[in-house]
Formats: sequence, structure tokens, C-alpha cells
Amino acid sequence: MAESTKKTKSKPKQKMHLAQFLVHGPTYHSLAMWRHPETAKAGYDWSRPELYQHIAKVCERGLFDTVFFADLNYIADTFGGSMGPALRNATQAPEHDPIPLLSFMAAVTKRIGVASTFSVSHSHPFYAARLWASLDHLTEGRAGWNVVTSINSNQAANYGEERQPPGTRYDRAHEFMEVCQKLWHSWDEDAVVMDRENAIFADPDKVHRIEHEGRFFKSRGPLNVIRSPQNGPAILQAGTSPQGQDFAVKYADAIFAIQPRAVDAAAYFASIKGQMADIGRDPDTCKILFGMQPIIGASEAEALEKQDEHNSLVPLEGGMAILSAHLDFDLSKIPPDALMTERQEPELFRMRTRFRKPDGTPMTVAETAARHGQSVSLPQFVGTPTSIADQMEAYIDAVGGDGFMISATHSPGAIEDFVDLIVPELQKRGLFRTNYKGKTQREILTQKD
Amino acid sequence: MAESTKKTKSKPKQKMHLAQFLVHGPTYHSLAMWRHPETAKAGYDWSRPELYQHIAKVCERGLFDTVFFADLNYIADTFGGSMGPALRNATQAPEHDPIPLLSFMAAVTKRIGVASTFSVSHSHPFYAARLWASLDHLTEGRAGWNVVTSINSNQAANYGEERQPPGTRYDRAHEFMEVCQKLWHSWDEDAVVMDRENAIFADPDKVHRIEHEGRFFKSRGPLNVIRSPQNGPAILQAGTSPQGQDFAVKYADAIFAIQPRAVDAAAYFASIKGQMADIGRDPDTCKILFGMQPIIGASEAEALEKQDEHNSLVPLEGGMAILSAHLDFDLSKIPPDALMTERQEPELFRMRTRFRKPDGTPMTVAETAARHGQSVSLPQFVGTPTSIADQMEAYIDAVGGDGFMISATHSPGAIEDFVDLIVPELQKRGLFRTNYKGKTQREILTQKD
Repeated sequence: MAESTKKTKSKPKQKMHLAQFLVHGPTYHSLAMWRHPETAKAGYDWSRPELYQHIAKVCERGLFDTVFFADLNYIADTFGGSMGPALRNATQAPEHDPIPLLSFMAAVTKRIGVASTFSVSHSHPFYAARLWASLDHLTEGRAGWNVVTSINSNQAANYGEERQPPGTRYDRAHEFMEVCQKLWHSWDEDAVVMDRENAIFADPDKVHRIEHEGRFFKSRGPLNVIRSPQNGPAILQAGTSPQGQDFAVKYADAIFAIQPRAVDAAAYFASIKGQMADIGRDPDTCKILFGMQPIIGASEAEALEKQDEHNSLVPLEGGMAILSAHLDFDLSKIPPDALMTERQEPELFRMRTRFRKPDGTPMTVAETAARHGQSVSLPQFVGTPTSIADQMEAYIDAVGGDGFMISATHSPGAIEDFVDLIVPELQKRGLFRTNYKGKTQREILTQKD
Repeated sequence: MAESTKKTKSKPKQKMHLAQFLVHGPTYHSLAMWRHPETAKAGYDWSRPELYQHIAKVCERGLFDTVFFADLNYIADTFGGSMGPALRNATQAPEHDPIPLLSFMAAVTKRIGVASTFSVSHSHPFYAARLWASLDHLTEGRAGWNVVTSINSNQAANYGEERQPPGTRYDRAHEFMEVCQKLWHSWDEDAVVMDRENAIFADPDKVHRIEHEGRFFKSRGPLNVIRSPQNGPAILQAGTSPQGQDFAVKYADAIFAIQPRAVDAAAYFASIKGQMADIGRDPDTCKILFGMQPIIGASEAEALEKQDEHNSLVPLEGGMAILSAHLDFDLSKIPPDALMTERQEPELFRMRTRFRKPDGTPMTVAETAARHGQSVSLPQFVGTPTSIADQMEAYIDAVGGDGFMISATHSPGAIEDFVDLIVPELQKRGLFRTNYKGKTQREILTQKD
């Protein structure tokens, strides 16, 4: 510890950004969560807003940039053509709408960003632009929208649609964002004059039609929401396909990425930041946060024991179900002992960096499914608080990167431990902020000290 | 007052139900609201959630059934083909998305229902069913959804759509509700077993596909939300057209109606309750609440003075703009001194009961517009608390009806006065509850004592 303090003094490093990953359901990245003895003991209910209000307050105490919800609109039957594995193992099933939770969490916090996934695939941009501008007002500029296109055939079927090819899907997403941006700009900043004496609420010359007529959407505008603090929410993204990266490079204020190996994280990081420079964007205006799952013990041995306990709570069936769902490919069609890295099915290509252990060893279908069920292939950082801080520091050193998205093994409990034990260690090393400086989500995401 | 107490004792009456009408914007039914000296003095900001949290707490103290948001998705240019009149007069412009406010309000209350309009016209039932089931969970069964179809051409243009004829619009709405109901039923009540020992979260045999394929929608299901406390939200409605009434009669737990004259309210009440009996539904399972705007004074003279002050704050241009928008018909095409009751334009038919004063006198275009700008033609009940309680009692006696939806002249201030001055008077007369008995919104709407 003395050594690492010395190291920091000799060469000051960029401060990390931290976000908390959440799902409005019984499991996050860990399928063990709902079975975990700590979760059971705490007696909290994943369907109650008090749990999420508590988590938001803890993360604000920990000076996190954001609490962030993933989201989806289906229960998968991808593995073996049955919903059974997903329902038995609570593999993101059920998953309630997280948007109403953002307000609950904003009601009990002041600074932390509140962010959620919202798919553009089943909505019109007027609806989304209005929802997110309203949230940005209500949170005083703390709203963040993870823009996703939906690629899962189960989700498409719930909306009575066919899966779209990625090209069309992202062309539509680009136009969706373009319409949202136009609508967010349809009210000038000084349009509301509130002249009570002369009965002029808003100046009609400062509110504009957008008259958008594109390939996918028409909208006349203006939005019926006045200019919001961030002029629309902060934009988050998690693009992995070339089209997804292209979208993220253009719009994202923060990107969430899953890379089990630092070497792949470094390549991803360099590629995205390079693409930003290529289009003339300052790469510092977008933070790339890598997912990780901390397992903290008072000793290394205790931490390893906790890891074993956690990982053993995930049945292989659950891992197969969630990996099949995420790939939108039925893994029951491949032998469990086949090496994932050697498969040629095109559906597997997008997630190929998750098919190796942190040391580079290729994994079988069963091994990959097990890891996916334990953490959706997030790297597990296991050890004492000092050791985990070391691992975080080493990962960021290797990647060059901006910070982490933390995912819990159990809830409540895990995030409290992280905030109480790891955050002070990072602060001591000068690797994490000691107060909020910015006011809006976008300002906090670009806060340097 | 002694007399009215006696009267109550000799003949116990049905208790009233009360709801509070809200808009997430600078005006409600009264275009005077944003200019009103009391609103200005209070320094509250209509775009901040604290205002609505305050109102929800006041209404819960007043034992109201519900706080309810109207909503729309446009800024009207109906009057004279320009947005100017709407923007200058804040005629429901701007109007932010009220859905995120429901969570803010639920976060600071325990019993009162939180309800909002949500249009089915630009959405898919899977999205709506999921949103409302999630809200119903988070509020522990206090959610209410005012189901509307959108009829305004300005709104349609924002979504790049053409206005649909009422027949098609309501056929679609019926199928929309049918799909929502199927999705809300897709999880059996006992589907979640949470058997941690044997790793069974939910019983797959108790979660069902809906496989809906209809004229307007396809959805495979199941919903990814477990059975909610009310199994979907309470359903509110404000149907006026024959198709709208048909929809309300079938689905609504409460109906909001605007009838300036008790005689028209009585006819509407009898017709709706009769239609319910006709389809074999217990008419008592749906409450019909009539809109009214109280203006309270310490004396009759003071109340009348307040009414004059309030009504004089509404420019005629504002009234013309909002009435044109609600009719979706440009009133600049008719002479202002023409009698509305004598016009033959089919667009005017739907709102024809609003074209007369409470005493039955027909009104001109200008008179109707002025009244519409003051209260969207809600009757103004003006006087001392005793006198207003008398007027409410007389209206309900004449109608046979269930209660009122209260709309404020200014905010904050008006609803506090109502709760502090009128509610105790109604309770003294035995006309209003003295505590909540039910737990869910639907139970409170059917609470009898």
C-alpha cells in the first residue's frame, strides 16, 4: 500500500470514472444474485423501489458518475426452444421497466446521474425525445439514455416484428437520434419569457417546427417540452458491432464495454478513441467504462471462498440460457465440450472476445456458458480491497482507459462494500475523485479531478 | 350549516369520490394559472417535481382517490393556422411527459392513486402493458391509466401519421386493451416460487405465451413483468363520442367527464351507467367524476371578486386557441358573435353540451372561447366553503353521481384551500370519507364509506 501511494505521487494518473450497473429484476450480470445468501438475508425485494433508492444513495455517497439500468423486453426461449431455462434461472426474466425507477432514485439524490436503456426499435422519436427531455428537466440535468437497437428475435416477436438486418437497424437508429436532436433544439434557450403583465408566456419566434421527412420517420414538431438542462439527456452506448461503434463514436457521452481481458479492452479502447479523432471529435468527451464484478474479502482466502460460493450458485442451464439469449443462437445445437473459439457460426462472432479466460486460454461452450451465467463474462476482480484496487489500477494502466462499470454479485451488500472499502483505497491512491464538481450528468462524466 | 347537518342525518347519502386534475405544464384547465398572482407569489416552478410532490401530499391529506394528469403531444396551431396564440397563452403548451412524475409523487405518498393519460395511438401494447404493470408494482397497486386515443391533427403530424377515423381508432384501442389484458394475465399469480434451494425462480408452467395475432397487433408474450397488485393499473377514461363511451363502459374503473350543466351531467351519468347494466356490468364498479373549478372566498363577495380577477386574466386569444385545439377546428373561420349552438360544422358536435351557460343560455363563439380559456368549460363553483359544499351537494343530488375531479385556478394554493376548507365541510355533512379503507387504487375507487 505504501508502495502504491509512492507510485501515485511520482506519476499522477487520470482519475477513474465509476458507474453502477443495475437491472430492474432479480439478477444483474450474476445469475447467482437471487439465490445468494446475502441477498436472501437482507430481505430486500427486487420489485420494490426502496431497494433502488438505497442503492442510488450509496452510489452517490461513493461519488459514482451514474447508476445505470440495462433493459430488455423479452423472456428468452433461445436455449432449446423453451422458456423453462430462463424462468427457472431468472436469466433477466422477469425484468420490469426501469424508466419509472429513475424518478424514484432522483427523488432521493442530488448529484448522481440516473440512466437507463431505452430501445429505439419499437418507438417513435417524438415519444422518446419527449420522455428523455422531461426526465432531464425533472432530474435537473442528471438523465442518461443508453440508446439501443433491439437485436433479439424473442423481443421482436413481442412487438410483432421481424428482426431487422444490422444495416437497416442502425440507419434507422441514426435517423431516430437525428430527429430527437432536432426536437431537443426546437425550443430556443430563451423562448420562455413568462411576461405576466403582457400575457406572453413564450415567444413564438423562438419555437421552431422541424418538418422532418426521412427514410424512416416523419415529424413536424416542435417538441412540447422546453429546452432541458442538458438539451436532451447524456447519451450512453454499448456498441460492439461496427455499426454500433459507429453510432457510439458519433453520439455517446459514455460507453459501457465488456472485455474479460485487458488486452482486448485496450484494443477496443484505442479503436473507439481513434474513430472519434477520425471524425474530428475530442476523444476525452466520451468516457469508456469497462464492466467488472468485484468480490471482496477480508483476506485473499476469504475472497476466493466467496467467489467459489457465488459461482457455484449458477446452474449450467442458466448460463446456457443467458448466453444463448445474448447470442440469439441456440447453444444446445453445439456439443458442450466444443471450443467456442473454433466455431464458425456467424452469430457467435460479435462476442468472440468473451470466449477466452483472462489468461487467454480458449473456453468450451460449457465453460463460456458458466462464466456468462456468473457475470455475463465481466472479469471478476477478487481479493482484499487493496488487491482489488491493484487489479483495477493494472487493468486501467494496460487499457489506457477511463474507468469501470461495477456489477454486483448480490444486492444489497456488494455495492455498500465497494463504496466503503474500495472507493477510499482508490481515493488514497489519487485514482478517484473526492467530490463532485459538475452539476449535470455530462459535466460529471467529463470531470477530471 | 346546522340545517345541512340535519339534512344529512335524516337521509344518509352516498359518499363522494374526489380526484385532483393536473397537467405537467404551466396551465391546467385555467389559462389564467401561469399569470395568477398567487401562483407567481408562491414562486413554485411547474417544471419541478417538488411542486407535484407537494400537491400529492396535500391531496392525500385530503383523502382524495387520485391525482390525475391529462396529457397531449402537440402545440396547437389550429386557431388561425399559427402556433402563436398557443405559445403566448400557454394553452397546454408546453406540456411535459407526466409519466415520470407518477414515480416522484408515489415516492412521497402511501395511499393516494397516481394516474396519468397515456395515448394508445403511437405505441405498441407490449410497451404500454409493461410500463403500466411496472408502475403498478412500484406504487403497490396505486397506478391508474387514462387510456386515450389521439384525435388531434397536430399530434398526428408530430408522429408522422394521418388522423384516423373514429371507428378505426377505437377498433384499434379495443384490440390494444385486449392485448394488454392478455399480457397482464400471462403470469399466474403463483408463478414466482423463489425456491433458492432447488434453483427454481419461476415455474415455467405458470407463465404463458399469448400468441396474439389481430387486425392491428401481433404479440407473442409473455410479458416480462410478474403479476402486478391490481393485475395491470386501474383504467380511467373520459370518453365522449359513442365509440369512446363504449370503450369506457367496458374497461373503465373511473370516468372523468366535463358537463357545465347538471342536467347534461345527469343525462350522461344515466346513459353510461345504463350502458354498463346493459352489458351485464355492475355500474357501481365504475365511478363517474365531474370536473369542477372551485373559487373559494371568506365571503360570497370576496369569492366573486376572485372569480372576476381570475377570469379577466385569460385573453380571448387564449380561449380561441384552446377551444380550437380541442375541437380540432379553426374558430377564426366563424364570426365571434355567432351562436355556437346554431353551427352545423360536424367537428363541433362532440362538445355541444359546453356551448351553454349553466342556466341554459346559448353562448356565442367568443363567450364559449372565454369560458373554455377560464376552465375548459368546467363549471366554476364560487363562494364560501359552505356555499361551495352546497353547490357540490346540489350538483350530485341532481346528477345522482359519484363525485368530482377538482381543477385549480392557481397552483399551489387552490388545492390547499380546497382540502383545508371544503373537505372538512363535506365530511361534517357525511358526504366524504374520513379515512382510506382500500389499499389499491381500484379498492379506493370503490370504497363506499
